[in-house]
Amino acid sequence: MQVISSPEQVQSFLLRQKQNGQTIGVVPTMGALHQGHLSLVQRARQESTLVVATIFVNPTQFGPGEDFEQYPRTLQDDLQQCEQAGADLVFTPKTDEMYGADAQTFVRVTELTQRLEGAHRPTHFEGVTTIVAKLFNITVPTIACFGQKDYQQQLIIRQMVKDLNFGVKIVTCPIIREADGLALSSRNRYLSETERNRALVLNRALRNAGQQAEGGVSPAQIAVEMQRRIHDEEGVELEYAVVADERTLQPVCEDTDSAVALVAARVGKTRLIDNAILRFPSTP
Amino acid sequence: MQVISSPEQVQSFLLRQKQNGQTIGVVPTMGALHQGHLSLVQRARQESTLVVATIFVNPTQFGPGEDFEQYPRTLQDDLQQCEQAGADLVFTPKTDEMYGADAQTFVRVTELTQRLEGAHRPTHFEGVTTIVAKLFNITVPTIACFGQKDYQQQLIIRQMVKDLNFGVKIVTCPIIREADGLALSSRNRYLSETERNRALVLNRALRNAGQQAEGGVSPAQIAVEMQRRIHDEEGVELEYAVVADERTLQPVCEDTDSAVALVAARVGKTRLIDNAILRFPSTP
Repeated sequence: MQVISSPEQVQSFLLRQKQNGQTIGVVPTMGALHQGHLSLVQRARQESTLVVATIFVNPTQFGPGEDFEQYPRTLQDDLQQCEQAGADLVFTPKTDEMYGADAQTFVRVTELTQRLEGAHRPTHFEGVTTIVAKLFNITVPTIACFGQKDYQQQLIIRQMVKDLNFGVKIVTCPIIREADGLALSSRNRYLSETERNRALVLNRALRNAGQQAEGGVSPAQIAVEMQRRIHDEEGVELEYAVVADERTLQPVCEDTDSAVALVAARVGKTRLIDNAILRFPSTP
Repeated sequence: MQVISSPEQVQSFLLRQKQNGQTIGVVPTMGALHQGHLSLVQRARQESTLVVATIFVNPTQFGPGEDFEQYPRTLQDDLQQCEQAGADLVFTPKTDEMYGADAQTFVRVTELTQRLEGAHRPTHFEGVTTIVAKLFNITVPTIACFGQKDYQQQLIIRQMVKDLNFGVKIVTCPIIREADGLALSSRNRYLSETERNRALVLNRALRNAGQQAEGGVSPAQIAVEMQRRIHDEEGVELEYAVVADERTLQPVCEDTDSAVALVAARVGKTRLIDNAILRFPSTP
């Protein structure tokens, strides 16, 4: 497995590989890898002949007061895991190689970024779409894998790819959970044992939402029940819990076959998100 | 010469060509081609094995009240000229193929777009950078040719290419002028004979600026003299006439070896721009 930090070197290497007929599968990450990331690398491995992971803690997607400084950096461990999961190349740029002193170009998706994460983290998604556009141009992917855990993010990236005609197929991979249901996240390592137990309410609320949906409970009622459960958990501060259209993220109020339940909450100082697809009984 | 309107078809064809080792030279245009555009096609011909011209009157780079509706559309003539100039493929997308109903992604360069054209046409450059990003993704150029006539535009596109890591070499080609000095522009065909004569003041002001620079006149004085000349011409309304840094477009006030003089004016209802590089005597 190669590890390269120079954007120019990675780009010229991968352009050459693509000309040689390789299909390139890319997994953009901020490191602090866990089994969720590795499932993306494994998926890229299945669907492409050359697998690239990128590790870059992107400053522009963190807001003021967020956890950029303390975000876990575990490069040696990450590289080992990438190799085991089947990556051929890991791209590990430095910040000043990614953002020149006069950098002034931004990619912005306007509508899908307004609600949910975008409402709570106003500059977050512009940071994400800009860095992903850069990473796509550097790594020239045939496919790129993202996790369903960041549901809104993968929707926004799909929109960007479509709107800007990136010739990349986006693959969204399932959420990976601990045995007790906690969705894997690099931020889980911030949690104390008590907090970690409290955080389980997110998954419980989502599973209950799934059961309610199958039982024909209305989307609006399901959302209220999720909010109640998360709100009632000690030490957990609800940010949002909604039932939304899977493509537009607009709240679903009427009858539908399926929808996505999305939740965000602070557990102590740690902000966590989770989601689940809901299936409703077909209306007769 | 092929003519294709489908973005998907062009993209997959050109990706294949690139894999086969072709170097792709792209010339983005809004049609209404003149010898200026053709010089770009000829330059692309010299520097690449496969030459693509794109013809698309991009609505998003026209502001309210600008000339989008009346912009000349001369497709049959354009295609003939492209073929004669050596294009292999002309991409002629329709508006709804370029902008889906839910299109919501924009590429924005923040600093270089503030002054001059950006100040007079506030939404113009976001339209330009967004469409050029799309065209680059569709046509996967090795090089792309732009005219020096749109001096600020080519700077902004260079900045975007650098900031977003597009693997494209930008080539800027010299301004092509009529025998009497008028810079070629698709908008020249809006001019009456009287207006066309009046429009010559732009080039005269720039040539005078060049002579003054060689004579050691200060940038500030040169700017004032350009403004005076253009302002004094009957039927010509000055928008700006400045001497600016060639890379940042900031006004040049101090001693310098070279700078760019940029002018914009309305001649009747027609808005024209022009520019020239100024060389100053080396300071001892």
